Amino acid sequence: MSQTSTDRAAVSVLGLGAMGSALAEALLAAGHPTTVWNRSPAKADPLVAMGAVRAATAAEAISVNRLVVVCLLDYRSVHEVLDDVAGKLAGKTLVNLTNGTPGQAEEFARWAAEHGADYLDGGIMAVPPMIATPDAFLLYSGSSGAFDEYRETLDALGESVFLGTEPGQAALHDLSLLSGMYGMIAGILHSFALIGADRAETFAPLLRRWLTTMTAYVDGAAAQITEGDYTLGVVSNLAMQAEGYVNILRVAEEENVTPVLLAPLGPLMQRRVADGYGHEDITGLVELLTNQK
Amino acid sequence: MSQTSTDRAAVSVLGLGAMGSALAEALLAAGHPTTVWNRSPAKADPLVAMGAVRAATAAEAISVNRLVVVCLLDYRSVHEVLDDVAGKLAGKTLVNLTNGTPGQAEEFARWAAEHGADYLDGGIMAVPPMIATPDAFLLYSGSSGAFDEYRETLDALGESVFLGTEPGQAALHDLSLLSGMYGMIAGILHSFALIGADRAETFAPLLRRWLTTMTAYVDGAAAQITEGDYTLGVVSNLAMQAEGYVNILRVAEEENVTPVLLAPLGPLMQRRVADGYGHEDITGLVELLTNQK
Ligand SMILES: NC(=O)c1ccc[n+]([C@@H]2O[C@H](COP(=O)([O-])OP(=O)(O)OC[C@H]3O[C@@H](n4cnc5c(N)ncnc54)[C@H](OP(=O)(O)O)[C@@H]3O)[C@@H](O)[C@H]2O)c1
Ligand SMILES: NC(=O)c1ccc[n+]([C@@H]2O[C@H](COP(=O)([O-])OP(=O)(O)OC[C@H]3O[C@@H](n4cnc5c(N)ncnc54)[C@H](OP(=O)(O)O)[C@@H]3O)[C@@H](O)[C@H]2O)c1
Repeated sequence: MSQTSTDRAAVSVLGLGAMGSALAEALLAAGHPTTVWNRSPAKADPLVAMGAVRAATAAEAISVNRLVVVCLLDYRSVHEVLDDVAGKLAGKTLVNLTNGTPGQAEEFARWAAEHGADYLDGGIMAVPPMIATPDAFLLYSGSSGAFDEYRETLDALGESVFLGTEPGQAALHDLSLLSGMYGMIAGILHSFALIGADRAETFAPLLRRWLTTMTAYVDGAAAQITEGDYTLGVVSNLAMQAEGYVNILRVAEEENVTPVLLAPLGPLMQRRVADGYGHEDITGLVELLTNQK
Repeated sequence: MSQTSTDRAAVSVLGLGAMGSALAEALLAAGHPTTVWNRSPAKADPLVAMGAVRAATAAEAISVNRLVVVCLLDYRSVHEVLDDVAGKLAGKTLVNLTNGTPGQAEEFARWAAEHGADYLDGGIMAVPPMIATPDAFLLYSGSSGAFDEYRETLDALGESVFLGTEPGQAALHDLSLLSGMYGMIAGILHSFALIGADRAETFAPLLRRWLTTMTAYVDGAAAQITEGDYTLGVVSNLAMQAEGYVNILRVAEEENVTPVLLAPLGPLMQRRVADGYGHEDITGLVELLTNQK
């Protein structure tokens, strides 16, 4: 294995799907000696052409570097790849960027500790083409020692945000952000179904502008939720919004679009208005989402 | 009635809820002589203090100016207010910014024409505090003569976007944009329920940043929908997303949050993967929303 002398940490990347490949490419571009492995070996080819070192097995990839970045489909594949090579993990730092739940991250942190590895769990807030651009940020939690040591390396992927030593926090924040995004995507899909393919191209800039503007709601909602006061700065009262929502469901019917994605919000709005909160903001609906303990 | 000499068109505003008041205030600020009316008269007080002329009745408000802007709760209230004064509408220009469906806008356009009024239907893409700021835009359709004549006046409210002479187009675009927004709001509510009130304030900037960044999906989706090709530029394949979605529903269960708002997307993703589209983008789900004719 040829290794150029460098002050950049050497990294092994396990998993070269769309995301793992983008991560490996960013590390190479930032000057990190990078070893790559993927179950289907062909996905390593473009990276090898860019200067990456190919590992024939996951075991080999782990052996050659102390820092190991894992980006596989899910925790099942992570265990499939790592269980067999657990004996090689002592002294390594595992940075697991595979999507999972807080519970999975915590379980895996214990597993890594049992095998002597330092563990950092992560969530990637970017799509692959955004990696290494100012749009990308990545959430980390777990070993603060690992984060401090490798922060500069991780910054090559996007802005690094450390959320504390509880290993599940990155996953909790990641999945919460993704939940917000999937709500938005559901809305986008419904809106394109309504407007139709013929008008999609001219509609898109209006939709993107509108959604971007209305992300401002996040700040207002956070203040209301933090204070527990849903009357704080109301500019769109819930009664009015519930009235308008009837039109949203009605136009779907007029235009022959299934309202399956947007329908559940309606009854929650109606119920909250019936309960006497029509003068409040829509934010009060969080009360109906959190199960009383 | 005192009227200052001005080259700005005089306007009457019917309806002084949160939005109507913001519209009247913007017109006053832009130098338009503005007459205001509201069912509950007290809501006119602050506007009168700013220089608006109070009309005692809707009939009076309509009589004094040729341009009449209507912003009431819904079409039921529009008819309640205007049916009685239909005899006074000949020669007027009605700009109706009340939320409604394309069908309601078309019906109302016919009604206005029957009573000799020029009709412009509109949709307000802003919350009241955004009115007269660069964030606001308003959609119009219907009489192009009315739009051309009063465009400068309407520009005082926000950027004016004309969508053609079919009266229902503004409502269709408005409700499509609102559908996208309500999906986003549903996602935001779910994500705050997940993260909890204690972490809401620190979570909010991450969420706003993430949603803003991911509005980029709109452009990709529009291109895919226009071409009818959901493999175009895929960076997040549906099979991977469907796998991650399982975690989104699982974390809701772990955190005791009802998944009612996000649940419907899951089966659609699963169905589309089962149908062989796992390599495509999530955009293909629009096929499942549009009822086959
Ligand atoms: N793409 C995005 O937009 C995005 C954004 C943020 C986070 N992520 C996360 O990043 C991770 C990877 O996503 P991706 O977009 O790269 O997905 P992808 O393109 O579908 O790649 C999946 C990867 O997982 C590997 N894999 C799957 N099952 C395996 C198994 N049983 N054993 C070994 N390897 C296995 C695949 O190997 P083969 O090539 O051999 O099939 C491939 O390397 C996921 O957890 C995803 O949630 C993705
Ligand atoms: N606020 C927003 O964020 C926003 C954004 C875009 C569009 N809009 C649209 O703007 C319109 C007004 O919304 P808003 O926020 O101003 O609502 P609002 O604050 O609740 O005001 C509702 C208005 O409708 C009047 N009204 C209701 N029923 C009536 C009836 N039967 N007869 C006469 N007047 C009646 C009310 O009069 P009283 O004062 O006498 O009750 C009040 O002026 C709605 O169509 C809404 O969808 C609002």
